[in-house]
Amino acid sequence: MTGSDLARALDAADPIAPARDRFRIPDGLVYLDGNSLGAMPSDAPAGMADLVERQWGRDLISSWNRHDWVGLPLRLGARIAPLVGAAPDEVVVADTTSTNLFKLVAAACAARPGRGRILTERGDFPTDAYMAHGVATMLGDRVVDAVAPDALPEAIGPDVALVLLSHVHYRTGARHDMARLTALAHAGGALVLWDLSHSTGAVPVALDACDADLAVGCGYKYLNGGPGAPAFLFVARRLQPALVSPLSGWFGHAAPFAFDGDYRPADGIARFQCGTPSVLALAALARGLATFDGIDPGAIHAKSASLTGFFLDRMDETAGLHGFALASPRDPARRGSHLSFAHPHAWPVCRALAARGIVGDFRPPDLLRLGFAPLYNTHLDAWRAADAIVDLMRTGAWDRPAFHAAAQVT
Amino acid sequence: MTGSDLARALDAADPIAPARDRFRIPDGLVYLDGNSLGAMPSDAPAGMADLVERQWGRDLISSWNRHDWVGLPLRLGARIAPLVGAAPDEVVVADTTSTNLFKLVAAACAARPGRGRILTERGDFPTDAYMAHGVATMLGDRVVDAVAPDALPEAIGPDVALVLLSHVHYRTGARHDMARLTALAHAGGALVLWDLSHSTGAVPVALDACDADLAVGCGYKYLNGGPGAPAFLFVARRLQPALVSPLSGWFGHAAPFAFDGDYRPADGIARFQCGTPSVLALAALARGLATFDGIDPGAIHAKSASLTGFFLDRMDETAGLHGFALASPRDPARRGSHLSFAHPHAWPVCRALAARGIVGDFRPPDLLRLGFAPLYNTHLDAWRAADAIVDLMRTGAWDRPAFHAAAQVT
Repeated sequence: MTGSDLARALDAADPIAPARDRFRIPDGLVYLDGNSLGAMPSDAPAGMADLVERQWGRDLISSWNRHDWVGLPLRLGARIAPLVGAAPDEVVVADTTSTNLFKLVAAACAARPGRGRILTERGDFPTDAYMAHGVATMLGDRVVDAVAPDALPEAIGPDVALVLLSHVHYRTGARHDMARLTALAHAGGALVLWDLSHSTGAVPVALDACDADLAVGCGYKYLNGGPGAPAFLFVARRLQPALVSPLSGWFGHAAPFAFDGDYRPADGIARFQCGTPSVLALAALARGLATFDGIDPGAIHAKSASLTGFFLDRMDETAGLHGFALASPRDPARRGSHLSFAHPHAWPVCRALAARGIVGDFRPPDLLRLGFAPLYNTHLDAWRAADAIVDLMRTGAWDRPAFHAAAQVT
Repeated sequence: MTGSDLARALDAADPIAPARDRFRIPDGLVYLDGNSLGAMPSDAPAGMADLVERQWGRDLISSWNRHDWVGLPLRLGARIAPLVGAAPDEVVVADTTSTNLFKLVAAACAARPGRGRILTERGDFPTDAYMAHGVATMLGDRVVDAVAPDALPEAIGPDVALVLLSHVHYRTGARHDMARLTALAHAGGALVLWDLSHSTGAVPVALDACDADLAVGCGYKYLNGGPGAPAFLFVARRLQPALVSPLSGWFGHAAPFAFDGDYRPADGIARFQCGTPSVLALAALARGLATFDGIDPGAIHAKSASLTGFFLDRMDETAGLHGFALASPRDPARRGSHLSFAHPHAWPVCRALAARGIVGDFRPPDLLRLGFAPLYNTHLDAWRAADAIVDLMRTGAWDRPAFHAAAQVT
């Protein structure tokens, strides 16, 4: 059986293959960048038109009540909860991932006074460490200590307030053992904050089963919430009464519309909201989350492993000959839903692929990164990408001046 | 000349009357709540459809470059700048008003070490004081001191780091003398942070002429940016190099897509961005700001004063007889673009007006608040509202059980 026949056979047997119809993907495009920006749900245009024309345009201010705009952040949080193994009242949609990191890093530091270190992983997604530095600078009595991943377990000492980690690494796709690291941190008296941006909606996340404390995540990747979609945050129910967000805005108040002079945080997860959220952005995220309706999370995770495994097999068979070095873990249980390959010409190869309608991305200095979104990518997508890479390398077609042009922004 | 004839004559002479056609306002509705949520620009549906279907759906990740999504926050900031008397490189659109307050209060405190007080006005919009408290709690060495408006000048002592004030008060519409209070604060060695949420797009704001330091403002009121639109912030050019946001997210980095391990703030106003912004929300705000295209700000301010003055005259003539007590300043130079009236039955009156298609809002405990948006409200709107109030009070039609029902949320 050829690679494309195998791909077709796997797609024919895929129980969640029909979910692809929930998206509008341009004809002929092999979109392997859903880990940067998820594809558009088919009903997003109608959903946004309803929000804009009927709710904003016609019902105007009354929509805060009539269409329960006020309740959207909690309703959408409850919808995300099963995707991350949390209870519905442990997740809320709010602000950006960066801002949510600030809230929870600061709240964790306040809950662990006298512990001077915030432990992170060296080389993790930059904004995570940036925000931790921002908290540490404001507090004055904390430092951010970035260590190599292997050194994390032994670095968790009695002076660590918080361990801040990405569950799945944005470059390599390496997936941490959440249960083990959480237990190690707890044994050392520290809290753990997981960034789930590259996990949620693609690979298994079991926050409550792992006894996780805190988490944040992104709405615009596998959750398909649209460009710059609102982010989410998780606080374990047992921690909610004790933790307070330093971003004590009116939407996190116990009675926002009583206009009290004094800040009194809402009970539960609602207190981690801050300012007035963008209802337009929330409405788009609602369409993105609806693409998960009725689909077994286990089937999503199995599809992710199948897509990445299938692509990796194709690269092993052929493209490995052309100098692509896998930068992601081989063990499917230890990786996310994207694969990265180091190659000295990763940038022009990425551009040449895009010119053939195969969209992945490039991460400096030398990584070609391809994301596999379980809800809409197919094994045939994976086969086409691998086939194009081999063809580009075999023919030298990647090596044109246009493909060497200035780097992309994102 | 009757009131309605005078209204029609004033509307006929209004040089910016055609701007109303830039909005889609439901037939027969008198919408006097643009100070809570601005009306929908007529081209917002088409603009959002283009963003959603073409930019997100078709061009996907490439849109960050192709449609310059990355540049939107600075481009929209530059568009807001002339509405607040600032230079284009002094304003950026980012996050929410609450979050921007946190950034600038914290940055100001860092720039004024050893000064223990953040001075605010008692009874100001709650989130302003809440956020200042959040900063003070994190820093540990500051307190928020809320004083009566009259006591502000003498309260600016050598221990004040920052004076945080709303330019126009959300309840009363009272407008501060920005030049005088800024000069007083500077004479005392303090910085001033102005909240322009109820000013921008309606009344004159001259940040640079007043030598203002810092400001924030809202995108969803008179700027017509849609529900929960992104907010903006201003930092005077002379202060930009020295001030750093504690919310040091990757979008404020000098090179966000270099994925540096260390935070290095961008030059200029760009450093006050934080996480990935909602492009959908920015696109709606762009349509809102476009409603100001080609319109002289002076004409907007004159229209605001004319609308509020006309309405006040009608209330003086008639409705004052029914127990409405003006809670806003009489001097048009000392008020914003909304008027508030205290009345023991303000809540059912507000509901009864809404039932007649006249939408204002209620602020507890007893204020009926009516906002006049210069771009789309007419003098006839103001006349109809005053006429309806008189009729409701004269007939007792406000006093029905349905109008006494549970309070609205917003």
